[in-house]
Amino acid sequence: MKKPIGIFDSGIGGLTVLKEILNALPGEDTIYLGDTARVPYGTKSVETVTRYSFENARFLLKFNIKLLVVACNTASAYCLHRLQQELPIPVVGVIEPGARRAVGITKTKRVGVIGTEGTIRSGAYFDAIKAIDSSIAVFTKPCPMFVPLVEEGWTNNQMARLTAHTYLREIKKQWVDALILGCTHYPLLKDVIKEIMGKDVALIDSGHETAAAVAQCLMKRGILEVASSQQGSHRFFVTDSPDRFRQVGGKFMTANVDTVELVNV
Amino acid sequence: MKKPIGIFDSGIGGLTVLKEILNALPGEDTIYLGDTARVPYGTKSVETVTRYSFENARFLLKFNIKLLVVACNTASAYCLHRLQQELPIPVVGVIEPGARRAVGITKTKRVGVIGTEGTIRSGAYFDAIKAIDSSIAVFTKPCPMFVPLVEEGWTNNQMARLTAHTYLREIKKQWVDALILGCTHYPLLKDVIKEIMGKDVALIDSGHETAAAVAQCLMKRGILEVASSQQGSHRFFVTDSPDRFRQVGGKFMTANVDTVELVNV
Repeated sequence: MKKPIGIFDSGIGGLTVLKEILNALPGEDTIYLGDTARVPYGTKSVETVTRYSFENARFLLKFNIKLLVVACNTASAYCLHRLQQELPIPVVGVIEPGARRAVGITKTKRVGVIGTEGTIRSGAYFDAIKAIDSSIAVFTKPCPMFVPLVEEGWTNNQMARLTAHTYLREIKKQWVDALILGCTHYPLLKDVIKEIMGKDVALIDSGHETAAAVAQCLMKRGILEVASSQQGSHRFFVTDSPDRFRQVGGKFMTANVDTVELVNV
Repeated sequence: MKKPIGIFDSGIGGLTVLKEILNALPGEDTIYLGDTARVPYGTKSVETVTRYSFENARFLLKFNIKLLVVACNTASAYCLHRLQQELPIPVVGVIEPGARRAVGITKTKRVGVIGTEGTIRSGAYFDAIKAIDSSIAVFTKPCPMFVPLVEEGWTNNQMARLTAHTYLREIKKQWVDALILGCTHYPLLKDVIKEIMGKDVALIDSGHETAAAVAQCLMKRGILEVASSQQGSHRFFVTDSPDRFRQVGGKFMTANVDTVELVNV
């Protein structure tokens, strides 16, 4: 009896993480929950985001999931440890994998981090990097306009360029050689961010690193599904009308997100 | 025994409406509820916004309010009529007052309307204008980036100008002489919008018109508080942490929004 991996996000952005998990682990079944009725989390308080996260986790636990991925950076920053303590299954967030990768590749020992207001204010990336190597200098910047830009589809126009230039100016001056994209929406702005930061700065996609962490966690526990001819099956749930999720979802992943079910968590 | 006016909005934007009400009716007590834990409404479905609106209304009714103002354009567009049918007190929305004003001042009989995705998709302004004068041509455009711009404080920079230019280009070509700002955040972008539309296009602030409609409704029912030396008192409630509301609130109104209380609706 195959047990699925559960994944939740504040909305649609977590699909970039799911996409990486499907690439890395094509044999796994997955259940994705996007809390689209209460999106975004990035401007909300620790208490509110924690409450929402536990509600999302409780919903996914009903499907007998073997592991929970907190695909939302803000939720990972605010309550990953509490979820890990209180849930009966392993819980993987997106912060630590991204931080670990940045520490692994920086040569100048200067790392940049961008994310939502909530993620940056929490200091979660800063703490995670410092915990691995306290000698690394960390430069952070909240970029609240990036999510609306991506959702509007303005990922490669003058507005995207001008906004990215405004946000990244200070970090660029710090001569970092690795920049963590600490929000699931930001990989869609990769080209513009690369253009501004220059080719010598590695852009770290937390979703990509998280997929590797998930694989490792499943392997260590001996509960990894080895991909066979049998591809995994994938279910999608949202807390608001599925229409917008279906429309915008296509920007985030190529897999079929046509079958989306509405739930109340 | 003085009864207050209740006002709700998806978040902070409704403060522009409250400000107009305080100007027009300085003797009234008010209770404002910003649903900051679930903001924004503009991208969410009719069912979800309707559910949230009824929850907000139920919360305000506990304070024995004499009239309810739905300050949110999306909520007004989606469920004003249902609220009016089901609530035991008069309910005033922001759509009809704005529409009425536009019809009153257009000479070319060509009116533009901008708002959130939800407000525009609902056709509420279109229907309201046509119901008053079916000969008027209505041109609409959703401007989803305007709210994040205002919340970021980018109301008078190059990004604001470029974004406004992109959104307003088509409406400008239609030679409208009145443009309804169909979202509570948009009055803060008035200067930039004026710059692009030109001085011959009247910008209609739905909040301003709504205050007049509230005064009229209270007067008609004989429940208006005549301003005396005794100024009204004002309470603020939010569903998420009051911190951000206090910080950003200052951009929306000059009155004191320091005393903000957290509630669960």
